[in-house]
Amino acid sequence: MHKVPIGVLGASGYAGRELLALIGRHPAMTLAFAAAGTRRGERAEVGDRVITFAATEDAPLGDAALVFSALPHGESAAWVGSARAAGAKVVDLSSDLRPGTGLAGAPAVPYGLTEVARDAVRGADVVANPGCYATAALLALAPLAARGLIAPGATVTINAASGVTGAGFTPRRDLLFAEVAEDFRAYALGNTHRHASEMRAVLASFGSDADLVFTPHLLPVARGILATILVPVAELPHDVLAPWREQYAGEPFIEITDEAPSLRDVTRRNVMRLTARPVAGVRRPMLQIIAAIDNLMKGAAGQAMQNANLVLGLDETMGLPS
Amino acid sequence: MHKVPIGVLGASGYAGRELLALIGRHPAMTLAFAAAGTRRGERAEVGDRVITFAATEDAPLGDAALVFSALPHGESAAWVGSARAAGAKVVDLSSDLRPGTGLAGAPAVPYGLTEVARDAVRGADVVANPGCYATAALLALAPLAARGLIAPGATVTINAASGVTGAGFTPRRDLLFAEVAEDFRAYALGNTHRHASEMRAVLASFGSDADLVFTPHLLPVARGILATILVPVAELPHDVLAPWREQYAGEPFIEITDEAPSLRDVTRRNVMRLTARPVAGVRRPMLQIIAAIDNLMKGAAGQAMQNANLVLGLDETMGLPS
Amino acid sequence: MHKVPIGVLGASGYAGRELLALIGRHPAMTLAFAAAGTRRGERAEVGDRVITFAATEDAPLGDAALVFSALPHGESAAWVGSARAAGAKVVDLSSDLRPGTGLAGAPAVPYGLTEVARDAVRGADVVANPGCYATAALLALAPLAARGLIAPGATVTINAASGVTGAGFTPRRDLLFAEVAEDFRAYALGNTHRHASEMRAVLASFGSDADLVFTPHLLPVARGILATILVPVAELPHDVLAPWREQYAGEPFIEITDEAPSLRDVTRRNVMRLTARPVAGVRRPMLQIIAAIDNLMKGAAGQAMQNANLVLGLDETMGLPS
Amino acid sequence: MHKVPIGVLGASGYAGRELLALIGRHPAMTLAFAAAGTRRGERAEVGDRVITFAATEDAPLGDAALVFSALPHGESAAWVGSARAAGAKVVDLSSDLRPGTGLAGAPAVPYGLTEVARDAVRGADVVANPGCYATAALLALAPLAARGLIAPGATVTINAASGVTGAGFTPRRDLLFAEVAEDFRAYALGNTHRHASEMRAVLASFGSDADLVFTPHLLPVARGILATILVPVAELPHDVLAPWREQYAGEPFIEITDEAPSLRDVTRRNVMRLTARPVAGVRRPMLQIIAAIDNLMKGAAGQAMQNANLVLGLDETMGLPS
Repeated sequence: MHKVPIGVLGASGYAGRELLALIGRHPAMTLAFAAAGTRRGERAEVGDRVITFAATEDAPLGDAALVFSALPHGESAAWVGSARAAGAKVVDLSSDLRPGTGLAGAPAVPYGLTEVARDAVRGADVVANPGCYATAALLALAPLAARGLIAPGATVTINAASGVTGAGFTPRRDLLFAEVAEDFRAYALGNTHRHASEMRAVLASFGSDADLVFTPHLLPVARGILATILVPVAELPHDVLAPWREQYAGEPFIEITDEAPSLRDVTRRNVMRLTARPVAGVRRPMLQIIAAIDNLMKGAAGQAMQNANLVLGLDETMGLPS
Repeated sequence: MHKVPIGVLGASGYAGRELLALIGRHPAMTLAFAAAGTRRGERAEVGDRVITFAATEDAPLGDAALVFSALPHGESAAWVGSARAAGAKVVDLSSDLRPGTGLAGAPAVPYGLTEVARDAVRGADVVANPGCYATAALLALAPLAARGLIAPGATVTINAASGVTGAGFTPRRDLLFAEVAEDFRAYALGNTHRHASEMRAVLASFGSDADLVFTPHLLPVARGILATILVPVAELPHDVLAPWREQYAGEPFIEITDEAPSLRDVTRRNVMRLTARPVAGVRRPMLQIIAAIDNLMKGAAGQAMQNANLVLGLDETMGLPS
Repeated sequence: MHKVPIGVLGASGYAGRELLALIGRHPAMTLAFAAAGTRRGERAEVGDRVITFAATEDAPLGDAALVFSALPHGESAAWVGSARAAGAKVVDLSSDLRPGTGLAGAPAVPYGLTEVARDAVRGADVVANPGCYATAALLALAPLAARGLIAPGATVTINAASGVTGAGFTPRRDLLFAEVAEDFRAYALGNTHRHASEMRAVLASFGSDADLVFTPHLLPVARGILATILVPVAELPHDVLAPWREQYAGEPFIEITDEAPSLRDVTRRNVMRLTARPVAGVRRPMLQIIAAIDNLMKGAAGQAMQNANLVLGLDETMGLPS
Repeated sequence: MHKVPIGVLGASGYAGRELLALIGRHPAMTLAFAAAGTRRGERAEVGDRVITFAATEDAPLGDAALVFSALPHGESAAWVGSARAAGAKVVDLSSDLRPGTGLAGAPAVPYGLTEVARDAVRGADVVANPGCYATAALLALAPLAARGLIAPGATVTINAASGVTGAGFTPRRDLLFAEVAEDFRAYALGNTHRHASEMRAVLASFGSDADLVFTPHLLPVARGILATILVPVAELPHDVLAPWREQYAGEPFIEITDEAPSLRDVTRRNVMRLTARPVAGVRRPMLQIIAAIDNLMKGAAGQAMQNANLVLGLDETMGLPS
């Protein structure tokens, strides 16, 4: 079988390495190149191969039919342009092309929240892969927005906690084991996280005028995101899980459960798992949603692979063990 | 110096052991007895002493001038009565005597949120020590409630995460290391946690009619609680931290900081540390509060010691290194 | 394709659950039953199925062509007999049938250190699956013993550390998260661990008269064993890794590396990874060996599956992603 | 009471911060300066003070009666000289002045294994504070060496595992939380660790000709060292713990216990806790020793404070809560 040559920019970070692992197991893809910035020239074990990272500027972009860019925010957009000029399609994991947070002047491209935007992704040459927190929150909110269930003018509260791989593979003192273990912290206080803008812009495109308050937290775990979401609703659905069960019926990467999901249920898997409950003891009807994803899989590399499969006309689930 | 004899019921759990350690270091207290239920007869290292747990029913209640009860919810109230009958004063760490969650028919006793209820505690024979989550949330909300700043009819959102010692020293499969590590979960979904009732009842007593939605989470850390609280306010205070700085001026166990606190800042210390921020990007004014305590110290044994000191007419800070 | 029906006794423990997961992914096996002791009747998620544990005494042993027993030491041997009487072949993960630690009167059966005892396993009806620590130590020592390299009369020192799943899925206070995190302890002091006897008996069968001193330790990680082994040798091999590279050439589940392996290299994989170094600064020649396995995979369920494949005449690697 | 002015070089690392905390609580010391290299100008919370790190070259050495140097190996010796020239006494926590690993040309100064070398330390102007691993191993071996119990020509095996603060507060990718959690690794393979030389030189000075094989490991914990030591002995002592109980009788910072110590027993305390066992099942008599210390306290700052107290003519235990 002919295999599609794939390139990875920013391959030495956590998302990049996850992409390399997925490509290594993909039945229809082969690695054309893996490039890195500061870690150029370093070697890495990828499955049973040992590869050497090329420098980003030496990446043979034209050798790839599709390029994943896991470059840092602000750096990625220019390389997306170069890859396109070299004839490659692109799935961009940075925030540079996303709604709400995109660089000024960046082209408008489909936002690859796959289960919601499948058709737009299928025909695209470039896809903006959603942020990890935004993926969890927006997959959770989309069925409510689509049914007009979010109370008009409501404030949606999103508290989420992420494993430290979400902060990247950068040597920082505050990410050392001895600093993170036995700790837990909120950050981006005051609703200032980049993903808040991303969520707001996309939720508006779903037709909701709700305000969003998003507070991210850093967990002493390697991977995983748990989002706890409160949504004032116009009225409580008769069957509380019906909006999600209906919208995501047959979706291979969405799991709606009666029990509350936890990180352990989704780690190393390309799924979102979600439950919801009516909120007791309050005057106005509200739903509480708990959604869990692996930040590196459904929140990054896994969803990027769903999008790449669609862009290349392959089966969306290829190379992604459910 | 004459030392006050102190008894501990439920001494073998995490809060009980913390109490034993505090009593051991207290300049004006001496341990009269330490009693346990299922672990009666076991030995424990307390500072440089080795003690043996008496059975609860063998505890010489009359030997103590004050008894701490860290017995389980539902069991504690009866022993509080026995201790009172034997002439001892009591600080009860269970929920049996607390507002909102107390046992039917239990006596009304002061709620020992020390910084808020100091005068009531000082004259009491029995004090209901607040729950760990409730301590963090209510110390955070009290200054806003006292100033009428919480928007009328508002919904206050409290997300909190606790270390596993909050779940007690009970051998449960779901609390084994291999189950908790690398995981994070919400529990008591739908606003059903016992502390939600406790918070609601106390907040009402502060004069606020706000709804409360409380979602607790289990962290893969041993100790600590971080609460992330959103409060719709009538208007934003000019100086966002002023309500807390004013109300808690001079308090030895409250720290108001510009930087966001994390568990590490408060671990093994009897303090609450707090910051607040205005929430950006929303139509109605809101404050975001981050409050951190050690669930076993300020959230249990430490606050209980503050209360015991007051009940006994001692300096409130005795035996509590700030 | 016809699938071989497989039963699991002791299915609710950590090794049992790993076996269930492997069976679920095995192209030539199907689950006939999963039985448990105290957790009978409980449900478990296995891949995308939800199963209910039968009681051990209700397990339909005759429905299985092969039974894995992950029952506790001392209980397993009797059920191995029952399964044999019902016509099933057996891979026993307990110590009941192992050399050095077997129950009195238990039958002599092949010791399933697969890479060393493949031919004996292939023709067997019952296989004693090695202990987790013994697997790491004996796979490391076998090539030296086979070449007569261990110094006569030497003392071989084996220090090993295991993740807590090695202690089983039993609710014990000393295995709670808050007790294990941030701790590290040695146990079975004085060379008294059951695996020390097992290692000694098997090493003697390899023709070495060496003394063994084995010290196990408990790590604050979920899974993995790292063994640090010192072996006085008759003389240093010219190429220090040659004994292992030669003996294990072509082995799919053995990785000999120049770099020191760590738990992370082998977690969730059915491999042993090993390196060795000559010891500097000592008068008598010694080798230092570092060997890593996943205690639940190569140290338990994975090696059991290798053995089961051989017993059933299947390809040894089936269902075991390298 | 007059307080002695104390300076700290290398104050921003883990050992430096621990020194600052000890000085802050010391009844007879006051901080004259705290200097740092790359982190000069940064602020740090020390107890209830906030301090700013001076640059090393701006440190007012002459303002201090005693300087602790926690500078990196290779850099420290020169600053020790400068501090001496400015009239300060010095406790040097680097390896620059230690036996076996000292810089060429560095002066011979007392080796501050306090319980063993108290008299030499008392009169010294400069003390070389032992390495963390060396402290655990040598305090464990000293009583055996002093009694001639180590078998002549024996090989002593030292396996030890340390929390990550032992690797320093340097931003390194391999020390990030997501790299260290759920992992365990050996390093300095082949008996090449700097502390092996240090242990060897000091053990020889105790009169033993034993070979030493030392293998350090990195634990996924913040702090603590556990050493597992095997010592071939001329004969087993009648009372296995007698050598330590005799030698360390009355020592405030040494705890000899029947039960095996673990990290948890010593964390944040300036003690070594130790037990020993005869080794079963071997032909030649051997002792197995388990010793635990906190690498930052008894293994660094705590022992340095013992030494500083002696150098200054203060009570050795001052500022060191047992």
